[in-house]
Parts: sequence; C-alpha cells; structure tokens
Amino acid sequence: MHHDYQLTIGTLLHTGLTADPDQRITYADQVDMTYSEFGQRVARLGSALTALGLGQGAVIAVLDYDSHRYLECFFAVPMMGATLHTVNIRLSPEQVLYTINHAEDDAILVHEDFLPLLLPLLLRIARPMRLIVLSDRAVAVPDGFVGEYEAVLAAGDPTHAFPDLAETTRATLFYTTGTTGDPKGVSYSHRQLVLHSLGVIACFGPVPGRGGFKRDDVYMPLTPLFHVHGWGFPLIATMMGARQVYPGRYEPARILGLIGKHGVTFSHCVPTILAMVLQAPGSEAVDLSRWKVIIGGSALPEGLARAAMARGIDIHAGYGMSETCPVLTIADMDATQGATGDTTSVRIATGKSIPLMQLRVVAPDMTDVPHDGVTTGEVVARAPWLTDGYLRNDVGTAALWAGGWLHTGDVGTMAADGTLRLTDRLKDVIKSGGEWISSLQLESIVSAVPGVAEAAAVGMPDARWGERPVILVVAKPGTEVEAPAHAAVAAAIAAGRLSKWAAPERVLTVTTIPKTSVGKIDKKAIRAALAAGNIA
Amino acid sequence: MHHDYQLTIGTLLHTGLTADPDQRITYADQVDMTYSEFGQRVARLGSALTALGLGQGAVIAVLDYDSHRYLECFFAVPMMGATLHTVNIRLSPEQVLYTINHAEDDAILVHEDFLPLLLPLLLRIARPMRLIVLSDRAVAVPDGFVGEYEAVLAAGDPTHAFPDLAETTRATLFYTTGTTGDPKGVSYSHRQLVLHSLGVIACFGPVPGRGGFKRDDVYMPLTPLFHVHGWGFPLIATMMGARQVYPGRYEPARILGLIGKHGVTFSHCVPTILAMVLQAPGSEAVDLSRWKVIIGGSALPEGLARAAMARGIDIHAGYGMSETCPVLTIADMDATQGATGDTTSVRIATGKSIPLMQLRVVAPDMTDVPHDGVTTGEVVARAPWLTDGYLRNDVGTAALWAGGWLHTGDVGTMAADGTLRLTDRLKDVIKSGGEWISSLQLESIVSAVPGVAEAAAVGMPDARWGERPVILVVAKPGTEVEAPAHAAVAAAIAAGRLSKWAAPERVLTVTTIPKTSVGKIDKKAIRAALAAGNIA
Repeated sequence: MHHDYQLTIGTLLHTGLTADPDQRITYADQVDMTYSEFGQRVARLGSALTALGLGQGAVIAVLDYDSHRYLECFFAVPMMGATLHTVNIRLSPEQVLYTINHAEDDAILVHEDFLPLLLPLLLRIARPMRLIVLSDRAVAVPDGFVGEYEAVLAAGDPTHAFPDLAETTRATLFYTTGTTGDPKGVSYSHRQLVLHSLGVIACFGPVPGRGGFKRDDVYMPLTPLFHVHGWGFPLIATMMGARQVYPGRYEPARILGLIGKHGVTFSHCVPTILAMVLQAPGSEAVDLSRWKVIIGGSALPEGLARAAMARGIDIHAGYGMSETCPVLTIADMDATQGATGDTTSVRIATGKSIPLMQLRVVAPDMTDVPHDGVTTGEVVARAPWLTDGYLRNDVGTAALWAGGWLHTGDVGTMAADGTLRLTDRLKDVIKSGGEWISSLQLESIVSAVPGVAEAAAVGMPDARWGERPVILVVAKPGTEVEAPAHAAVAAAIAAGRLSKWAAPERVLTVTTIPKTSVGKIDKKAIRAALAAGNIA
Repeated sequence: MHHDYQLTIGTLLHTGLTADPDQRITYADQVDMTYSEFGQRVARLGSALTALGLGQGAVIAVLDYDSHRYLECFFAVPMMGATLHTVNIRLSPEQVLYTINHAEDDAILVHEDFLPLLLPLLLRIARPMRLIVLSDRAVAVPDGFVGEYEAVLAAGDPTHAFPDLAETTRATLFYTTGTTGDPKGVSYSHRQLVLHSLGVIACFGPVPGRGGFKRDDVYMPLTPLFHVHGWGFPLIATMMGARQVYPGRYEPARILGLIGKHGVTFSHCVPTILAMVLQAPGSEAVDLSRWKVIIGGSALPEGLARAAMARGIDIHAGYGMSETCPVLTIADMDATQGATGDTTSVRIATGKSIPLMQLRVVAPDMTDVPHDGVTTGEVVARAPWLTDGYLRNDVGTAALWAGGWLHTGDVGTMAADGTLRLTDRLKDVIKSGGEWISSLQLESIVSAVPGVAEAAAVGMPDARWGERPVILVVAKPGTEVEAPAHAAVAAAIAAGRLSKWAAPERVLTVTTIPKTSVGKIDKKAIRAALAAGNIA
C-alpha cells in the first residue's frame, strides 16, 4: 500500500536538516549551533514535554522574545500533535489571562521577564498547568514550576521519534484584538503552515538576481514570533536550510551589531522597528547595503522607504493579516531588481498576490470591480493557508467567510497588471452616492496643508447620498486651516486624483482628535460625537 | 463557512496568469501569444471538449511533439476533471494500442505525423472515440474525426468556467515500459502535480545568483512532454509566469535557432539530446553561455558535462523516474554557483533530495546503510508526489510500495552531506558474501582497459557467497584482454576504489554481448546463457 504523505511541520524540519546539517543558527551572541544540534534539541524538547504528560491535543503556550527556544517550540510542539499558543506579550494582563483560559492551555513556557505579568494571573487559571521558565542565565525556578528550559531539555531524548500526524491537525493558535470585544482565537493546521511556506518560497525564491530570499541569505526576524508565526519566515528559513540569527529582545544597538557581525541579509518588520534601527546612534557606521527588508503590519510610508533606500536597503512592502497566516501580497520584487529609475512607488504598493492566492476586489454584491487601478472595493481572498475561522466564535467566523471568501475588511484598487493598492479600512471608508471615498486619502491631502497638525475624515449619515465626508482638523497655533483644506481637496479633484464626490461640505477645526488606547484615530468615537452634536 | 481550498492544476494556471498576463509563450517560429491569450485558449479547449460530451472521469489522449497545443492540454484536460493520457509515441504500434485500450481513452488528439501509426489501430479499439487532428498547417480532416484542433478551439468559449474539483481527482496517466511484461499505467492526482511543482520551485527558486530557475528565465523543454509531464517543468514555468518557448519536433538546427533567437536560458533533456545539440553543425556559432540545463533520464557522463561546461553551460544532473512524478534529487546547484574549482563531480552526482522528499538508502531489511558515501543499498522514497501505484496492477503496486516506501530499484550510496550517488540497478547489482558489488563500476573499470571494446558484468549463483561476479568482454581484433582486465580490477581494489569481494574469478572473452530491443545490455539473457553453459 502506498504511503499517504501528510503535509506536516516535521517535513519542513526534515527538509532543512537534509539541505545543510552543518548550517548554523545563532541566538543573540549567546548561542550558536548547527542545524543537526537544533534537530536534536527539538527532539529533546518533544521528548521532555511528552514526559510531562503533554501529547496530541495538548495546548502549550509560549511567552518569549525572538529566540532559538521559540524556534524550537515552533517545531517540537506541533510535531507532538500539540498546539503552539503564541502569546502576545503586549496584551493587557486581563487579555493575556483571557487568552490562556480561552485557549485551554495545558502548559506555559515563560521567559523570566514575563513572570511579573504571568504569576499574578496563575491563581485565576482553573486548569492544571505545567510551567517552565526560560532565561539566558542561571535563574531561580519559581515555586510550582517544572524547571528551567535548558534543564528540561537536558533530560530529554535527542533521538525522540515524533508521532505520525494527519495534516489537518491543529498546529498553532493565537489571538487577534480588534477595537471592540474579546480577543479572537485564530488557528492553523500543519497543512496550512506547510502550504504557506511553499507559497512564500515560490514567490521569494525565483526573484532574479540577489532579490527575494535565497539559500545563501542570512535571516534575522525583526517581527515578534508571536505575531502570526513571525510572519511565517522562521519556518521558511529553516526549511530552506538558511543561516539564521535570532535577536532576542529588540534593542537597536544589539540589532545593528548582529547585522554587522553576522552579515544579515534578510529581515522583516513593521515600519516603526525599521525607523528605530535607521535612527539609532551608530546606525550610519553599519553597512546595510546588502540588507533586504520586507515591511508589513501597516503601510510602508514613502519617506521611510526613501530613507531605507538611501542606505542601500532593498525594501518592499507586504500585506497580510492574522487570519491569513499571514502573507497575501508582496510588492513586485522582480520589477525593482536591477531597475534604474525611481522604484519607490512599486516598493510601497500593497503588491501582487503570491502563488496559489486568489485575490479579488469586490463590490458589496461580490462582483469584481474593474481592474483599472481606480475603482475601489473590498479585498477578499482564497488560499490554502487562510484560517478556517475564529475559535468558538461562529458569528465572527460567518462574517469572516461570508459568501465563501475571506473578507479582509480592507478596501483597495486592483490594476490591470494585478497590483493591489489598499486605500482604507472597510469600516472607515465613506460610502457616498454609490461611490466609495477613502478616508485615508482625504486625511493625507488635508494633512499636507500648511498649519494642519492633524486631520481625521469620517462618513456621516446623509439622507440623499447615504454618507457624506466630514473632516476634523487640529490647527497649529495661530493658523486658520478650514478654507485652505477645502482648497486642497478641490485641487486634488481638479487634478483627477479624487472623485468630485469626495469634496466635504464640512471641515471642522477641533482642539483634539479622539484616539484609541493604542493611539489610532477613534473614528467610532468621532462619528458618535458628531451625531450627538458634540462637534459642530 | 470557510472555503476548502483544493490543490488543483487550475490554481497553477491562475497563478501564472496573475503573475504576468502579458508574458509570452512561443511555439517554434509559428505561434506567439500572451499568457492572457493562452488562458483563453485553455478555456476554449475545455469548452470544446466538454461540448463533445467529455467531462469528469473522461480519459483524453494526446500524441504530439512539444507544442503550445500540448501545454494547453496539460491544463484544460485536468481542469475539466478528465485525465490526460500522454501517449509515448516511441512505443511499438502494439504497445500504443495496448495503452489506449488499457487507459480506456475516450478521445485522442493526434498530430498528423502520427496518423500512420494510429489509423491502423482504430479498428481494434472497442470504445467510442472522439478524434481531433493536430497540425501546424491546413490539413485534411480524416474520416470519422471531429475536426482539426484550431477549428475546434475557434468554436469554444474563451470564458468557459471549469468545474470545482477535489484535489485527489486523477489528472494524468501514462505508461512505463520495463524489460518484461506489458506497459504499466502510472497516474497522478491534481494534488500530486501541484505539490511536485511547489517542491521543485522550492529547490530551484532559492538558488543563489543566476542559478536554478528564476522568473526572468526563458524556458524551453527538450524532453518530450509525454515523458513524465515533461519532467514537470511546463507546469512549473507556467505557474511562475516565465517566458516559454516550445520547440516542436526535435531538430538540432531549429533548437539552436530558438535558443539564439529567444535567448533560452533554462532547459532539461537526456544526455543524447544535449550531445546532439552540441555536435550539430553551426552549434559553435550560438552563444550557450547563459543556458542552464538539467540532465535526467540517465546518468550524466563526465565527458558530456565537461563538453557542456566548456561552452559555458550551467549543467547539473537530476534523478527521478516515471513513478515519482518525477523529481527526487538534483545535483547541488548552490555549491556550483560562483565556485572557482572544478565542479564536475558535484554536477554529475545524482544529487540531493528536493524539499519535502524523504529519501533513504536501505539494506534488504529496510535499515538505513551508513551515510558514508561508500556503503550501498536500495534507494527508497516518500514524497507528496509519488504515484499511488500501477493502474489495475495490484502485484506491481505491492512490490513498488513494499514496507510503505517507494522502491526505486536503484542502488546507491549516501554521503554525510546528503548527496546520493547511484551505482547500479538493483536487479543488476551483484550480491556476494553479504556485500553489494556494482556491476556498472566493474564494467566502467574493465571498459577502460586498452583493447576492450565492450564489457558486461553480471552476478552468477555461488553456493558459498550467494553470487560471484562474471565479466564478459568483447576484445578489439588482435588483442588479448582477460589478463589485463583482471589486473585493472586488482589495481582498483588496491587503490581502495573497490572492495576485495569484487574481484571476479572469471573474465570471459565473447564475440558479442546480448542486447535488448532498445540497445541496453540484456543481463537477464547473459545470466541465462551462462547458466546454460552457452558461454564458458
């Protein structure tokens, strides 16, 4: 009888170990090991966790910085048939507690730095819990803990054989937070993670020249590994047998030092982290001209892109979300390789679908909008690596997958060549007279008016047009900006950059613009205040 | 409810059409079209075949040279849910008839050049058959035929929507011939072909520099598309959105012309075809220094590798078989990129496993032999793209998958770095005193002895050792080679290149060595003749 091959995380590890057993994995400046040794440590970890009574169906949580330990958990936990719960250490303590309970964790591996966060919560966790402390140094093992990670590994079996698993077995679980409600649990199967890895390699591997991601690249993540599998690249780099460097806690000086020392050539991060690295003291002294960086998490600002390119960085934007494993699109890396003109607009575009991705931009009736680079619609997707839905949340899942397509909640345009450009979040877009007006575009235009400190655009109900745009502006002291703002919008319309429907009847000067707890403009609060007549 | 994404051939086409709709596909010097036009032709073909009553479960055979038509069938037929039967036009007429009947074909698309082969067979096919003739020019449609390919396409719908399919749906079927028995049917599902494509890209894409297969490569197959999916590269090139050139019938002058005119950079073929191209009149005038060539089908001879390298060709061996979709291993393309020393031995090695492949070299009890580059065993494999078995041949399937591993029937060694080197076919290896002796290695040593025109080594039953080697030699006129042959083997043993068990007691001079119908040494006949005392 033929062997029914299953697409499991273990096959990715096997691929990497076969490709180059002598290749190296480095953690900050503390640990340096070969892939062979890494494979043995993964086996030890699997063996030790199994000895604690954890097996198929168990849920094992991790709170750590970007370390070799985390990478070991990326493999060992799913390979046991258990689920790896990657805890977002930036959530509030109450949210962390909620996710631990909702995920039904059976074990927690926690870095000593997060003990002050976790220990007070333990009394409020009903389930029995195995606890292991992680540290870079000798550390006292807290009461009730099984032990320290290295001691646990030392007792494990480096030849441990993992069980055969069905590819539909759940491998990972993490939580995504919106502006309202409890965090939502998002999970992925072995199959989804393997196919995501293959899809991303099929995009990044065949890029001409030295672009993309090649087997001779030196990889260092600058995205927390709890953020959607560190965007998937730790699995991919391991599968490729690439040189890997894990930076630990993000400190600009250490990051720059690791890039210089190990010749890091491939990373990914949010714009904030790249800006931090570029602006850090001593940054100029480090050669970044062989560094390729993928930016995700939020849009790549043109200014940051230019600043990176001035340092020789090969920078491109990517797009994805927690529910999509995450990669959906990448800016066209082929087009910028060896290009002579200004490639900034290509690099900051949301980009093109990666292989196997089916991406559409649709009207509310789910028909495709014209691929003219102008008409906006919601971005919906199908791919072999999109989450099946939210854990124990049928209402959220039904909305996510309405009509059999995953709804990103993002609004954008599609060009004839397949390039997607996001323009707004669906909940913030202004629907007027059957047309969609981008609140972000209005804000961008008005923000550029001299004297404007800040701007926010929202749609307000209108009996005739459905909605009409209203713009709030904060003016710098001593300036009058309402008339110039109207003029700037009119100029954009005259230049064809904006539809005539987008001209707001009202630009209102305010002293402050409401913000959410994470500092984003709170458009829900603005709409409520406008509706209540508190702004006028 | 979430969408249950299936790994189907249609998703590969969608990926290519999305990647670059304006990219071009060329057939010889007759047809040049964009991917968009190609997508419309695939839809037309699917629509037209559906209108003929062919649908899910139908079997559609093709007899053609390497053309754009064949590529269209690669997609349209499986996307209908039908099976594409790629007929080996080099089989004998009786074998072709056998495969058409055994496959239960419902339709045949046949190039006019193969009408003399096919027409006499039609009366002996019991099933109703739709027939379409293919030609590069205006052609008379034979009686009983539906029509000519281009006319059939013209009547089709360029917006035809293909049905949704389960990824386990059978996509392709072809026949493999051994030295005995009827041809055996080998089939592949959509899932297997998609995962083979992804595995090969994950190997060829991330090669550093300009090696491997990149999206800016210009691809031209030099393997017949009926040979194990043209080794899989037509699907892969299409998925990547690469420039493609199809050569039609293999004529050295035309091949060289197409390489020069279109700047072909990536091809694959058997050694014979490459030798033919290199030795063709006018070959020296064509710049081959940007041509990458993968050699498969049989071992890459060192002399051919050196001749190719002397022309600037980036050449590597690959290994696979009909039952494995086919790619199992590729010579280490990373190691040769930018290398300064002599890379010939790396290029001609059987190579390293491609991603997701689990390859073992095992003793008869299925334990792994040491990975020392010396100890031989049978190569067995697991991968997501190995055939489930032979069509309606349970005995053959059980032998192929004995113990849950696909048995290649090849004998080789595995080095510590994961490099496989084949040494013999299992059925030809000589098993003596618990050791395996490579018949090919003995033949190679003896063939190099001055005066030896040809040599063949076989194992003969031996009461004490199980088997002992016997070598037949054909001597050039006027030479005596038996003693020098013994001496050459002894020298190889003394140099440590051969185990002492390998020294044959008998080297026998003969006038001719028995051959099979395709010109290979017939070791079965030699063993029979030796056993009968007809050679002594």
